[in-house]
Amino acid sequence: MEGKFVVIEGLEGAGKSSAIASVVSHLQAKGIRTETVREPGGTPMAEAIRDLVKQRWEEQVEPATELLLMYASRVQLVKTVIEPALKGGTWVIGDRHDLSSQAYQGGGRELGADLLKTLKNIALGSFVPELTLYLDVDEETGLERARGRGELDRIEEEDIEFFRRTRARYLELAQRDPRIVIIDANQEMLKVHQAILRALEEHLF
Amino acid sequence: MEGKFVVIEGLEGAGKSSAIASVVSHLQAKGIRTETVREPGGTPMAEAIRDLVKQRWEEQVEPATELLLMYASRVQLVKTVIEPALKGGTWVIGDRHDLSSQAYQGGGRELGADLLKTLKNIALGSFVPELTLYLDVDEETGLERARGRGELDRIEEEDIEFFRRTRARYLELAQRDPRIVIIDANQEMLKVHQAILRALEEHLF
Repeated sequence: MEGKFVVIEGLEGAGKSSAIASVVSHLQAKGIRTETVREPGGTPMAEAIRDLVKQRWEEQVEPATELLLMYASRVQLVKTVIEPALKGGTWVIGDRHDLSSQAYQGGGRELGADLLKTLKNIALGSFVPELTLYLDVDEETGLERARGRGELDRIEEEDIEFFRRTRARYLELAQRDPRIVIIDANQEMLKVHQAILRALEEHLF
Repeated sequence: MEGKFVVIEGLEGAGKSSAIASVVSHLQAKGIRTETVREPGGTPMAEAIRDLVKQRWEEQVEPATELLLMYASRVQLVKTVIEPALKGGTWVIGDRHDLSSQAYQGGGRELGADLLKTLKNIALGSFVPELTLYLDVDEETGLERARGRGELDRIEEEDIEFFRRTRARYLELAQRDPRIVIIDANQEMLKVHQAILRALEEHLF
């Protein structure tokens, strides 16, 4: 039987890492084989693309350049890692996927939704995750947590308005897609954890 | 007055470098300021993308990954270098541009023409070179010359059929676009040089 692709999404500081740990241990307890991947990145070549897109450059990085690099990394990961793993029966847990581009490059950088949709079709065709858990955190709380962890990368150092637009787009897209579940990540950790397990049980089993 | 964008295209070993030198000296003799750029590459970030796309990886590099990286590099170069230079009155001479993707990724790798057209529109809008000189060389002659220069990169080490398809696509596209001039690069160098100067005079002055 084919594996399923489950994605964890959210702003920096939303708690994606502990959510991924919850999902993985919940699935493994059922005897399901899992593989965790992150975007951008997840293969040696895609990780090199991640480094390019996250580092600071003296030149202005064009929004379209950033977007195309995100999709280059994504295609490489989907074709060489995710699809083969799913075919082999392994479930794949993704730390970010396409929704991040819709939210960050579409919402945050204000690139047109049509452009994003076209690029997604070109790059991924009809490939979509079985379930996406969007961890919704207030942008100020999220950024504060992320800043507490150390230096921010080129994208994370954007101003608060950028993250406000990104969050708004996340919420807008999540509300109209039945495959995306919004998890309130402003709650205490135990409640977030419970909400995640409930979503997995309701949508995947 | 705005500068013009002139592109030199062709297979490896077609003689692009000496063609560029001819174009630059011909323009400079007229008192025109010129800047030379290459693709992929041409800005620090785009050069880093070039390194990624040309190096060998243990994983299979997906054709779509390669294509998206080419466009990421191209957008970055056009927006941060070419367009500002043209606006400032400098002429830009390009060692490869969009036609290379149409020929190599479209012809060589057999990616669909619709996909390429859509991606081009997304990335570049209506931006096109004023003139493209396509140096047409027999694929065997070209490869022999390129091999004589030393180690080949990941793309250059493709088999002869790849370059046959690439050349066929170059010719097909050049024949139907009045802004592309085909230069027979199988001739001796002096004749190639003369054909280039003739094309510049006919199409640009």
